[in-house]
Amino acid sequence: MKKELHFERAEYAARLTAVKEAMAKRGINILLLSEPPNQNYLTGYNAYSFYTPQMVIVALHHDEPIWIGRFMDRVSAVRTTYLSDDNIRAYEDEYVQSAAGLSAYDIMADVVKEIGGQRVKIGVEMGGYYYSARAHADLARALPLAEFVDSDLLVNWIRIVKSPAELSLMRQAGRIADAAIQRAVDTIEPGVRECDLAAAIYHQQVSGTPEFGGSYDCSQLMLGVGGRALEPHPAWTDEPLPASTTVYIEVHGNRLRYQVNLGRTISVGQPSPAYRELCDIAIEALNAGLESIRPGRTCSEVNAFFRQSLARHGLEKESRLGYSIGIGYPPAVGERTASLRKGDETVLEPGMCFHMMPGLWLDDVSVAITQSFAVTESGHEALCSTPRTLFVK
Amino acid sequence: MKKELHFERAEYAARLTAVKEAMAKRGINILLLSEPPNQNYLTGYNAYSFYTPQMVIVALHHDEPIWIGRFMDRVSAVRTTYLSDDNIRAYEDEYVQSAAGLSAYDIMADVVKEIGGQRVKIGVEMGGYYYSARAHADLARALPLAEFVDSDLLVNWIRIVKSPAELSLMRQAGRIADAAIQRAVDTIEPGVRECDLAAAIYHQQVSGTPEFGGSYDCSQLMLGVGGRALEPHPAWTDEPLPASTTVYIEVHGNRLRYQVNLGRTISVGQPSPAYRELCDIAIEALNAGLESIRPGRTCSEVNAFFRQSLARHGLEKESRLGYSIGIGYPPAVGERTASLRKGDETVLEPGMCFHMMPGLWLDDVSVAITQSFAVTESGHEALCSTPRTLFVK
Repeated sequence: MKKELHFERAEYAARLTAVKEAMAKRGINILLLSEPPNQNYLTGYNAYSFYTPQMVIVALHHDEPIWIGRFMDRVSAVRTTYLSDDNIRAYEDEYVQSAAGLSAYDIMADVVKEIGGQRVKIGVEMGGYYYSARAHADLARALPLAEFVDSDLLVNWIRIVKSPAELSLMRQAGRIADAAIQRAVDTIEPGVRECDLAAAIYHQQVSGTPEFGGSYDCSQLMLGVGGRALEPHPAWTDEPLPASTTVYIEVHGNRLRYQVNLGRTISVGQPSPAYRELCDIAIEALNAGLESIRPGRTCSEVNAFFRQSLARHGLEKESRLGYSIGIGYPPAVGERTASLRKGDETVLEPGMCFHMMPGLWLDDVSVAITQSFAVTESGHEALCSTPRTLFVK
Repeated sequence: MKKELHFERAEYAARLTAVKEAMAKRGINILLLSEPPNQNYLTGYNAYSFYTPQMVIVALHHDEPIWIGRFMDRVSAVRTTYLSDDNIRAYEDEYVQSAAGLSAYDIMADVVKEIGGQRVKIGVEMGGYYYSARAHADLARALPLAEFVDSDLLVNWIRIVKSPAELSLMRQAGRIADAAIQRAVDTIEPGVRECDLAAAIYHQQVSGTPEFGGSYDCSQLMLGVGGRALEPHPAWTDEPLPASTTVYIEVHGNRLRYQVNLGRTISVGQPSPAYRELCDIAIEALNAGLESIRPGRTCSEVNAFFRQSLARHGLEKESRLGYSIGIGYPPAVGERTASLRKGDETVLEPGMCFHMMPGLWLDDVSVAITQSFAVTESGHEALCSTPRTLFVK
């Protein structure tokens, strides 16, 4: 079967080495990776199969990682990873949502015992999206002599710095996001149903560009009209756009699971002078934040530049200013590592990527004009080229 | 703020009563619902905010449930639920993915103490997608005198039987799925990029029909071409469709979070006689399964009718034949309750809905011609009307 790998083998090897070094430093023999982005990062695995139990197991003294999942998805592991057949394991279908109480984690525990024995120190992703309370309880029961330690974000903190090859994909994702916002601007007219606007944006996100296609995004498209533009994560409706309103959109360019987010507020009809002024303030603060970015600065410092700009106009933003982005799967693209917020002392390094999301959700209006970027040697590189402005249709 | 409820208040009240009865039967004082579909079922809540900690808390001696989530999503709770302001709680943004180790579950534990005291029996959804090992550890730490019991699927088993109002939405979802498959058939031509085919299908899924719109689906669109049609959950590529190949598609009609799945294999160019024969066998078995459905039969019995039909041609299907469907959020629509499989003794009742998914993934070919249906008083009602046939383009 033809392999479909999107990076050089050497790059996967370097990623694995970095992870094993971090494991060794913490005395971890075996790392159980339940998070789909971490599985993809280390092995290339890519299929929508993570809604049933699935792990990538990294053992300090085992060359390759081991993928283990549902038997029917084994073929996806063969196709999308570099792993040898020996390192692709599977459990039978009767373990999927078993009414009889069968646990796929028993099969995973058997693999752990096979490669590491019983008295092993196991890292697990306690705060991950795909490591349920039951998964942990089942593993602890099946491996009573093992020591479990929380290794959540161990891989995330490694993949926060993107390689040149990864940055190429992030740039492509950014171009898809640009195309999606352009499609939104082109589509918005009074009378267009919200769902038809959303449909056009999804079409563009997935079609991508003539040079490269897009993939499904890590969350829904965010689309809020009028009163719903006050909701950061709203559901769109079937209502037609009125002659005068505000549309809040956050699109997601996704290229081979690398995602770039891009938010814009679009005014249908002429906005009020007060609203224009609010947008100008938000853009000024966004630019102040962006211009402050350079290696060596902390997330907290970047946040302060943004807040100072906002404060000059008597405004505050309650929520964090942004978060690191990269490989993503549902339910979210955020890497759960660095946030652009007060108290986050993460030092910026070239190759880190963020979505700067200075959304202001006030009592009766909102504005969200955002920018994803990569940290460079001297400052930042914008991953999207959509103008930072209030669009008016 | 205008409320946007999609069911009568009496229907929400009946759902809550049923849940409280199940709680009382198990001696549970407080039920912590982390699963987004269960939150939606009991309160109407609908926003893409479940990637940060969020709960609906049902207390036996508290009239209304309590929603608690991130402060910025409070406005979505006000808009989309019937809950009074008192029963909409929130935690501050600093608790989101806190590098300082703050846990939103501490705030949730405070609400539990407020309404139930310290010595309380708490049901949690141990096997849910949104109840991580850390969520459980944090709650157990914050509520050391409480007794935790696994109440996973307690609400799922109640919502497995759909009301007439819910069935109306399932029918609408089915019509959206029909339109999406038709769009796929219309779009498929040699030379069309896989991503452009996927884009057209997404467009239809979200646009819906002229009468009602669609929503985002609970998983990616499944789309596998040629060799990738052997993968049940493949990622599409940018490759153009060849002049002769097989396309496997599973679309998702989603109406106000109620989802109906529909899979079809589409042949580009004339299929071989052997492949046509395989499809005929699969369709015959699907029909045998469907015709066997009636209240009082078990899932296991329906599965047996399907398998007997398949076995007459010397074929077996490894994986389960189907699963119950209804309200869904990423990562999956499946309700994790009844499966159409050997050993599942769930007795069919009118109002239950399933996706019958007789996908055959063999060594070198696959076929997936599926049918979602509702159980009726006398048999079944197909939720989609797309012909059960191999489409040829």
